[in-house]
Amino acid sequence: MNELTEIGEFGLIDLIKQDTIHDHGTVVVGIGDDAAVLLPTPRQLQLLTTDMLVESIHFDLTMTTPWQLGYKAIAVNLSDIAAMGGTPRHAVISVALPATTPTEFIINLYQGMKEICREHSVNIVGGDTVSSPQGLVINVTVAGEVEPANLVKRSGAKTGDIIAVTGVLGNSAAGLDLLSVGEWEEYDFAWPLVTAHLTPRPQVKAGTILAAAGATSMDDLSDGLASESHEIAEASNVGIRLYAAQIPLSAELKQAAEKLDKQALDYALYGGEDFQLLFTMEPSNYEMLLADHPDLQLVRIGEIVETSQGVTLVDEEGGVQILEAKGYNHFR
Amino acid sequence: MNELTEIGEFGLIDLIKQDTIHDHGTVVVGIGDDAAVLLPTPRQLQLLTTDMLVESIHFDLTMTTPWQLGYKAIAVNLSDIAAMGGTPRHAVISVALPATTPTEFIINLYQGMKEICREHSVNIVGGDTVSSPQGLVINVTVAGEVEPANLVKRSGAKTGDIIAVTGVLGNSAAGLDLLSVGEWEEYDFAWPLVTAHLTPRPQVKAGTILAAAGATSMDDLSDGLASESHEIAEASNVGIRLYAAQIPLSAELKQAAEKLDKQALDYALYGGEDFQLLFTMEPSNYEMLLADHPDLQLVRIGEIVETSQGVTLVDEEGGVQILEAKGYNHFR
Repeated sequence: MNELTEIGEFGLIDLIKQDTIHDHGTVVVGIGDDAAVLLPTPRQLQLLTTDMLVESIHFDLTMTTPWQLGYKAIAVNLSDIAAMGGTPRHAVISVALPATTPTEFIINLYQGMKEICREHSVNIVGGDTVSSPQGLVINVTVAGEVEPANLVKRSGAKTGDIIAVTGVLGNSAAGLDLLSVGEWEEYDFAWPLVTAHLTPRPQVKAGTILAAAGATSMDDLSDGLASESHEIAEASNVGIRLYAAQIPLSAELKQAAEKLDKQALDYALYGGEDFQLLFTMEPSNYEMLLADHPDLQLVRIGEIVETSQGVTLVDEEGGVQILEAKGYNHFR
Repeated sequence: MNELTEIGEFGLIDLIKQDTIHDHGTVVVGIGDDAAVLLPTPRQLQLLTTDMLVESIHFDLTMTTPWQLGYKAIAVNLSDIAAMGGTPRHAVISVALPATTPTEFIINLYQGMKEICREHSVNIVGGDTVSSPQGLVINVTVAGEVEPANLVKRSGAKTGDIIAVTGVLGNSAAGLDLLSVGEWEEYDFAWPLVTAHLTPRPQVKAGTILAAAGATSMDDLSDGLASESHEIAEASNVGIRLYAAQIPLSAELKQAAEKLDKQALDYALYGGEDFQLLFTMEPSNYEMLLADHPDLQLVRIGEIVETSQGVTLVDEEGGVQILEAKGYNHFR
């Protein structure tokens, strides 16, 4: 099998260049010049987000295929654009590769990236390929756009708003635990959890619908529900009351938690990388949204309260506990 | 001294956030939400470029201060924007840091980044800080803008155009050699060369002037004159004839080359990271440009010829040799 040292940087760029442009009308110059040249949509705001994934910190090549890793490296950035109510448009990708990386590994890595970019009509318009003395590093930057009226920040939550999520929580963190323990393949419940961890689906379409429906604040659940609730509470200067009984947990998560001798709810609260959206909205708007979009898997999990009430969790017996900001820490 | 493990990701973000916005009118949301939100200039094209620097591949912490490294990590991206005729606007910065990195190192790294961003009114609007199991990795993405009429690609050079550069070449590569050999501090000639290597000055202002003056193609000299000449020749489907006697070499470079037992011209041709601009232009436009901008250090080094003539170098005795595309390889 060819190794990277044989094909070099230019050979690699030729491999990467194929099938990178899905929305030709917005790309004046793609890969191959000093910078990409892009045509913005008039009267939209520009969004910019970046994420770095480091081998043995953020991923383990014994647990993920290169295709899955490529898919996820893009997904985490699309999720950030979704959380602003925006639409992702263009990606630039930097990869530091050990010199012994097989060419096939690189092709599969980019295939995963290209697949999710195709799903979301995101163009890959540039990047940097460099060598790494040890370990793979991937950095993706995604540029997106949002209508000024649809921009949703973290800071707009108001007392009386509902707080809701776009789907089940905790699957990804439980999937990571299953991958770490190993021998998960024999359990049917494990597959959706492992899949949620390895190839998360960013809620881009839901994000634009929520924004248009009047979401007052929004965040993606990259760091877990507890941590992200605190982000919204702090940015919006409000308190948040969550109800444990309403937090959506999958049947598979419950089975896995039992197997792993863990609490399913803890995965939802303190696990991370679910990439569902957490949002707040006036109750009347939320009712209209539910009526208009039965296709979305929205679940109301609590409400916005006065700042002085802090961020709390009401347990199934009605007891109230303070919810700590601890959660998944990207800075491990 | 505090280490990174003590202050954590959020402490680090607080350190980084200060003094990041220089052009307040264009930033709706900077560091701190899921994505940056930016106000584009109407009727301009958007530019996007990214570069990754990996410790022990692209830099050696025994040869550079963290301040210089931060400065350079931004500079290389601004140079790419300059080479399109554009103006850099916003940067997002990812850094993977070993857990034992002293806080002071990180502060100095960002001070260097902030200094060059201040010089060019570039806003730092986001980023990602993660831990690294080994070695520092920095990825910078810069978004810029260009008037459609001023966009300069690599592909527009025409037979009969002159080809010119914005300043002396080879200083950076000679500076790197001096740093590698060591004990350069005693030589007066070494300082400008080492400085050219460690804190290169991107030619942003020159780039916009050249674009407005009608540059037909442009490239920054990140990989050396030979390699970049081939880039323009290939993209534009032309030949290029360069004159060795006209390539601008500094007196310091000549002294260093003698000391290092190397050819000064080789540094200009095959060294890299000068970050001067290489451009082509109709002769009449070039004459006007020279008259209008005596402040620029422009030097004509050759002309564009038919494709069939290839890329050649005319030596000081009038002999013609084929110029190979070899040069500085970022993919080391």
